[in-house]
Amino acid sequence: MTQQKLSDTVPDAPGLETAGPVTPTPGALSALRPLGLGQARLGAGGLLGRWRRRNAEDTLPHCVDNLHGSGNIGNLRAAAGESEDEFAGMWFADSDVHKTLEAAAWQLATSPEDAGLRSFVDGTTALLARAQRADGYLNSYFTVVAPQERWARPDWSHELYCAGHLFQAAVAAARAGVSPELLTVARRFADLLVERFGPDGVEEVCGHPEVETALAELYRVTGHRPYLDLARRFLDLRGRGLLGHGRFGPRYYQDHQPVREVREVTGHAVRQLYLLAGVVDVAVETGDLALLDVAERLWADAFRSRTYVTGAHGSRHREEAYGDPYELPPDRAYGETCAAIASFQWNWRLLLATGRARYADEMERVLYNAVAAAVSSDGRHFFYSNPLHVRTGHASTGEEAAARRLPWYSCACCPPNIARLMASLPGYLATADEGGLQIHLYGDATLTTPDGRRVEMRTAYPWQGRVELAVTSVTSEADAPWALALRVPAWCAAYTVSVDGEPVRAPVRDGYVRLTRAWTPGTTVVLDLDMSVRQVAAHPRVDAVRGCVALARGPLVYCLEQADLPPGTVLEDVRLDPGAPITAGHRQDLPDVPVVLTARGLVADAGDSLYTAAPGRERAVTPLTLTAVPYFLWGNRSEGPMRVWIPVAAAG
Amino acid sequence: MTQQKLSDTVPDAPGLETAGPVTPTPGALSALRPLGLGQARLGAGGLLGRWRRRNAEDTLPHCVDNLHGSGNIGNLRAAAGESEDEFAGMWFADSDVHKTLEAAAWQLATSPEDAGLRSFVDGTTALLARAQRADGYLNSYFTVVAPQERWARPDWSHELYCAGHLFQAAVAAARAGVSPELLTVARRFADLLVERFGPDGVEEVCGHPEVETALAELYRVTGHRPYLDLARRFLDLRGRGLLGHGRFGPRYYQDHQPVREVREVTGHAVRQLYLLAGVVDVAVETGDLALLDVAERLWADAFRSRTYVTGAHGSRHREEAYGDPYELPPDRAYGETCAAIASFQWNWRLLLATGRARYADEMERVLYNAVAAAVSSDGRHFFYSNPLHVRTGHASTGEEAAARRLPWYSCACCPPNIARLMASLPGYLATADEGGLQIHLYGDATLTTPDGRRVEMRTAYPWQGRVELAVTSVTSEADAPWALALRVPAWCAAYTVSVDGEPVRAPVRDGYVRLTRAWTPGTTVVLDLDMSVRQVAAHPRVDAVRGCVALARGPLVYCLEQADLPPGTVLEDVRLDPGAPITAGHRQDLPDVPVVLTARGLVADAGDSLYTAAPGRERAVTPLTLTAVPYFLWGNRSEGPMRVWIPVAAAG
Repeated sequence: MTQQKLSDTVPDAPGLETAGPVTPTPGALSALRPLGLGQARLGAGGLLGRWRRRNAEDTLPHCVDNLHGSGNIGNLRAAAGESEDEFAGMWFADSDVHKTLEAAAWQLATSPEDAGLRSFVDGTTALLARAQRADGYLNSYFTVVAPQERWARPDWSHELYCAGHLFQAAVAAARAGVSPELLTVARRFADLLVERFGPDGVEEVCGHPEVETALAELYRVTGHRPYLDLARRFLDLRGRGLLGHGRFGPRYYQDHQPVREVREVTGHAVRQLYLLAGVVDVAVETGDLALLDVAERLWADAFRSRTYVTGAHGSRHREEAYGDPYELPPDRAYGETCAAIASFQWNWRLLLATGRARYADEMERVLYNAVAAAVSSDGRHFFYSNPLHVRTGHASTGEEAAARRLPWYSCACCPPNIARLMASLPGYLATADEGGLQIHLYGDATLTTPDGRRVEMRTAYPWQGRVELAVTSVTSEADAPWALALRVPAWCAAYTVSVDGEPVRAPVRDGYVRLTRAWTPGTTVVLDLDMSVRQVAAHPRVDAVRGCVALARGPLVYCLEQADLPPGTVLEDVRLDPGAPITAGHRQDLPDVPVVLTARGLVADAGDSLYTAAPGRERAVTPLTLTAVPYFLWGNRSEGPMRVWIPVAAAG
Repeated sequence: MTQQKLSDTVPDAPGLETAGPVTPTPGALSALRPLGLGQARLGAGGLLGRWRRRNAEDTLPHCVDNLHGSGNIGNLRAAAGESEDEFAGMWFADSDVHKTLEAAAWQLATSPEDAGLRSFVDGTTALLARAQRADGYLNSYFTVVAPQERWARPDWSHELYCAGHLFQAAVAAARAGVSPELLTVARRFADLLVERFGPDGVEEVCGHPEVETALAELYRVTGHRPYLDLARRFLDLRGRGLLGHGRFGPRYYQDHQPVREVREVTGHAVRQLYLLAGVVDVAVETGDLALLDVAERLWADAFRSRTYVTGAHGSRHREEAYGDPYELPPDRAYGETCAAIASFQWNWRLLLATGRARYADEMERVLYNAVAAAVSSDGRHFFYSNPLHVRTGHASTGEEAAARRLPWYSCACCPPNIARLMASLPGYLATADEGGLQIHLYGDATLTTPDGRRVEMRTAYPWQGRVELAVTSVTSEADAPWALALRVPAWCAAYTVSVDGEPVRAPVRDGYVRLTRAWTPGTTVVLDLDMSVRQVAAHPRVDAVRGCVALARGPLVYCLEQADLPPGTVLEDVRLDPGAPITAGHRQDLPDVPVVLTARGLVADAGDSLYTAAPGRERAVTPLTLTAVPYFLWGNRSEGPMRVWIPVAAAG
């Protein structure tokens, strides 16, 4: 690894403000290129658009309020010498500020007129600049509370993690064209990191990955190669015994093996997934195919044996960690919201790098289920962990085991993480390449490629499978053929495609139908994805859900809630009659749920004994009609038992 | 509560050295009375006798060695001012010394000639006396390391927990008639506790219960009422917000409700169970039936919805805690060894108080499975947690998640706890009351009641169900009838009884057959318990083992181990053919397992996909012969996957 000089720096690329999250540099190992936030506009009517609007109107202001109310802003004031208040919250509380800033920047990319949001971004940027030390260091805890411990506890301190989130905020601001000073603040700190941790510096890494992907993104915005090299160095230093000497062992920190040798996802799920986002970024920017293979190999491990049907990651409350292969308990699913978001971000990077549909499938799954469930219908309450089963008699033992969404957390990493994802949502809908436009996520949106092709998309997805597209603008080379690629999700068993009303035969290749022609403005395409209700089974090695099915329709996983059971019925006694038809439709008595599933079930009675002679005496005592609602909407009516995996009644 | 004066003290009861663990005072609310260790002698040939001999020959010396090697003895030397060595181990390391002392005292009760053990007890007692402060306080951590924090952190400090184990050791020494100085040391400390925490003292309780049951036992040995009153006071102070302000909430500490109002077992399992032992002790000694009802109510909760089929308690690694009702995952079973021992001790107290067989049933279940599994065949390796399933690909993330027994632990609470239970084992076999002798656990033993009745018991239990008994001595009132009560375990579907070779009709009433007659020496009784192999099912609310059975024979739960599978077979793919016969017998190829179960199974193949359309495509590809070994013997041949609950092959 050779040291890069500051003179290698290239000026910020023109048109930067059109870019969205993760924009590989020209020449990077990238199959697809993202559209910028300005090139993918969500309409207000569809579900994704409503989520983003709710994020802007409720979640983001709620986060800003809580940064003030919970002391995060006060901590930075104290670091700037403008307050004598005691430090409040977690030692990595700055990261909540940075994530909210990032969210605000992405929002401003499409709502530049929002004066309140701009004022928050400008004011907070100025505060960060004042809180920054002369050498570029910026961390309120280690400035105010424990300056003598600066850089002293890499396992635990989260200093580079916080720095990473600062860099991500600065990248968003740069791409959104707001508060240019934030990038200056970030670069001053990043330059300090290069000096301290670079090739001539100390061999240390952060116990909580995040800075790796952030440095790569900062490189993309600035063109400053030492940032990328430092990201790579942080990856290469793992597995050398630098971490994990305390309460948690090295597996918790993904420090038990060198990154290039690892064959399984391990330890703290958010750390693992952020690290893997960085692995893809570095692989792509350095053209390192072997490193990209590592990421795809670990993806196969994670998604073949350690991912919930909701897309959630993390099977263990203890250490917030991945479990053993096929250890996927629904009731003790940790499924941290931040891990779901991290999985979305990791899959997005893999999709860009490879163009493989399986990554978009996982983005869709985790977005519509684990991520969406983490925020309440009012946008102001959040889950930290996302179980797939809340038992009758569940007792919360702390915030992370709550069976209801809370307005804020003592460790508030998740709410602002939701805010930044939802604010950047348009950027993940579609990509472009030399050959055309690829649509990965369906919603009411207008998509424009850098060279001027435009497609209008209208759909009631995910409630309906019909997606109407119209090519409304093409590049100047009007007659050159290009491919409109439409993802056919892996869950979809049947689909039809028509162009200008005429059915066309469009086979799925690698997860997409590709309609290649010299498009003319006004041409319409209709993709109709079959939305039959599905009964999903887990691999039988997932012992925890043996004999159960999950109900799904389109990308949505459904669940049973106590609120829909007759009074006195114990949720764990309910069985699904798997042979009876399951219908989908709107119901007057559930106005807030666009599509409800209705199935036939039974209530079982197995007596009081915990253990009996096999086979147990389970008698079906009462038939009943089961109502299943989308998992992402659970817990919005009342607190109470819920389950995704439904035991199937024995035949006969 | 009125204050007791020292003048209330009564002198030690004569014949004290004949008593075993938990000997209620005369007049206490106690249905049954224990035999002393000297009145219940285990022969060397049976399994219980071999366990106790192994404990004496291997486990106890191993514990003593480790107290030296791990610094526990050194800590006390430092507290006595005899060493400058740094404090070693956990801040509650003294408790390991006390538990080992207790074990040694119980052992000396029947092996008074063991000079080495006597020297350990006398020497350690003298060391404790020298380490004790002038005011009676005795705790090496808070003497050497943090004297300024004495009594300052009740949630965390374990000071009263350590005191409790000191008292238990002193009680054992008093009952065994060894090292009388230990009782003096204990009483000096106990008197300090009465002064500080008694009715005129501070309102504080210990975050880790243990002192409650220990104070009650100390009262039983000394007759000093303030000890009992303090135990009751500690119970009554719970649920008033004294604990649980830190990282763990009040449920973890069983401080969320007053003891008399609690309806569910909660939180840290060992704490809960030790507390409940104290609840029974105080109820019995104060004649408080309402308090006894609390214990029985919580027993119903624990054993109807939160106990593993091995008798283990504690479903969660996080917080080492009880889970929600029916949350009993086999793979993430915590099942701490200390919780199994605590359950045994709690059930023993309930058995004495009520005479109800269900408590003896649970003693047997936990002893032969969860407790016995915690110690290796060589007596020198131990499990801390006791899972019921170790997955293929399991990665240990720390001592408590190890899939093999370790020689010692950084938190070494379990090994000396095993030592004290095994050393006192004879005391739990039988009880006496006015009406006769009750035998609860079967083994090769000689049982003598205080008034001179003697029964010789010969059996190969638990390998065979035949128990031969001979009345060899009776009380002077030779012709007075008395009842020999023999427990018929709840697992037993059929049994026969004969007296002097003649079958007798002996119905089970309340869990026992009661043979009432004027016994004459030489009369023989044979109880034959049917030992057919059983397939056990769990209540279907235990979602984690749906579609599985556990194999059992007699009191023993069996398991499958990787060592008995063909190479390359994944344990999670193995299915039991439930209709095929399961045979029990000795096998030449498994010489160390007296009775092996042989069943017919299948290997399933369900492909690679984690989620598929239901029903999943599980094909049975290979029939195979399954070998099941007693759970308590698992992990003695090789480290590797193991499971108790076996998925049943689908019919047809």
